[in-house]
Amino acid sequence: TIFVEHGDKSLDRNGKVACIVQSGSVGVEALGYASNTGYGMRAFVGLGNKCDLDEIDFLYYFAQDRKTNCLGFYLENIEKGRQFLTAARKASKEKPVVVLKAGRTHTAVSAVSSHTGKLAGSDNVISGALKQFGIQRVYDDEEFCDATKALSMLSGAPGNRVAVLTAAGGYGVMCTDFIEKKDTRAPLVMAKLSKDTQNRIKEATFPFTACENPVDITASADDRMFSESLDALIEDAGVDIIICITFFAPPGITENLIDIVADKIKQSDKPVIVFTKYGPFTDNSIKNLFYAGVTAYPSVGRAVRAARFLVERTTIKKRFEQEV
Amino acid sequence: TIFVEHGDKSLDRNGKVACIVQSGSVGVEALGYASNTGYGMRAFVGLGNKCDLDEIDFLYYFAQDRKTNCLGFYLENIEKGRQFLTAARKASKEKPVVVLKAGRTHTAVSAVSSHTGKLAGSDNVISGALKQFGIQRVYDDEEFCDATKALSMLSGAPGNRVAVLTAAGGYGVMCTDFIEKKDTRAPLVMAKLSKDTQNRIKEATFPFTACENPVDITASADDRMFSESLDALIEDAGVDIIICITFFAPPGITENLIDIVADKIKQSDKPVIVFTKYGPFTDNSIKNLFYAGVTAYPSVGRAVRAARFLVERTTIKKRFEQEV
Repeated sequence: TIFVEHGDKSLDRNGKVACIVQSGSVGVEALGYASNTGYGMRAFVGLGNKCDLDEIDFLYYFAQDRKTNCLGFYLENIEKGRQFLTAARKASKEKPVVVLKAGRTHTAVSAVSSHTGKLAGSDNVISGALKQFGIQRVYDDEEFCDATKALSMLSGAPGNRVAVLTAAGGYGVMCTDFIEKKDTRAPLVMAKLSKDTQNRIKEATFPFTACENPVDITASADDRMFSESLDALIEDAGVDIIICITFFAPPGITENLIDIVADKIKQSDKPVIVFTKYGPFTDNSIKNLFYAGVTAYPSVGRAVRAARFLVERTTIKKRFEQEV
Repeated sequence: TIFVEHGDKSLDRNGKVACIVQSGSVGVEALGYASNTGYGMRAFVGLGNKCDLDEIDFLYYFAQDRKTNCLGFYLENIEKGRQFLTAARKASKEKPVVVLKAGRTHTAVSAVSSHTGKLAGSDNVISGALKQFGIQRVYDDEEFCDATKALSMLSGAPGNRVAVLTAAGGYGVMCTDFIEKKDTRAPLVMAKLSKDTQNRIKEATFPFTACENPVDITASADDRMFSESLDALIEDAGVDIIICITFFAPPGITENLIDIVADKIKQSDKPVIVFTKYGPFTDNSIKNLFYAGVTAYPSVGRAVRAARFLVERTTIKKRFEQEV
């Protein structure tokens, strides 16, 4: 068992995600993600062959650890299934618990050297059990990092109505497609903006701005227009989540937009997720956004998926509350 | 209409993909993709508002252009639907044609300022029409770049049986999960390796190598072991596609592996797709692989998806052949 408490400031700052992984390489990639684009890692534990400590020991530890606010597991076999699930359920009442359980299909299961066979049977059983115990399941290392990053930086979503703000029309349309796409994790809908919101945005921007959701303020927009439009969306009672498509290419948009968005996030209870991209500068923008406290992703699909993790988390928390 | 014939060697070399886009930003991101990780762009055309030339003009041009071997379109509306489809079908007999048609859902469709309404109705109709005319559809800019890159660098797949070679066990299992996952584009199956192949790999590597598919030669493997295992998989008659999980982290693996894999690809009719990742060095590895002629992606899901594009392309080509 490797146990690395994160001390390298060049990799991460004030990270709150504990990664407990049965495959060293998956953990190393989470570290790599951190150094590329910012991630928020608190600790990284490689379980190895679990000869001394196993996932449950670390689950107990990080569930208690005040510096951890999100737990992520990469597991190939869960030996003491019932004990893990019960402890994870307890932890999940306070902090999101994410599990990447590999070996979904028949061939994949045989590829995993499962020792005890507990929970190693049908993958549907595993999915059902994880869901029942309030654990969020992911399917690869990218999704693992994306989910724990979002859940560590943003605390759920009040609802599932998403507003999209963009300066690039095509990406607004693609984003809408992803939001309205059927997905078993958590359904999202496009928010219906109030007339007041639409008027505010039009006044703050251009007569030709498309003020229905997705809001397209066009590549002629500047920082102030972006900022005021974002305010209007955050203050619209019909909006639960905002996805900002933040491109730094338009001439009116500057790096100051990072701090503008970061300030709004601090003042708002609604989650704001950023999608940004700009060739070779993408990773650096995402890292700068991360250091300012903004959760950002380099693809439309990943940004929308992050919104689904938040809605899923809120659903889990609500279920726990109803049980009390 | 912008028309950029690609001349910047620092961005790309010998690119063969023509990108014809109705949204400038999508095209710019394809350029960014090229400069990040290598892509293979021949030309990039921004259609603007199509006041002089439209997608059909460029379809005719690049279908004839000898330096182009793959056409990619980002379109929000297709005004002359029948003409576009007929011309695209003709082009597709020779070269893969990929279309990113945004505006899938009701809200997204209203977000697109569709002028003529032709083909702008039901998204299922568009999907059906594209499929019927031998055009491959994608859903965001990442998939657009991934598909055109694979289809430009690799010419289809003889079948859908995939072998996975890995030095990181967990990623082999995840890759198997993605391969066996249901997908409407093209079903893939895990290849069943012959006893002879399994013995060859075991002899070339370790007694403890997992020689069933996915083949896990472990992090103790070196370049020679990787190379010989890859030979065995390529020569197995039961294998149509190979996905190599190529990590440069293990001590026995060097940068020479890039040329080793590139040489095999040149000598083989079977497509080889690489998944590689290593924190901040990922993009550079993918770019170096690209310059050596190897199609590589930074996530398991994207590598497996690339295999599906190839199988889909082969299905389209077979259908055209049967029609003659």
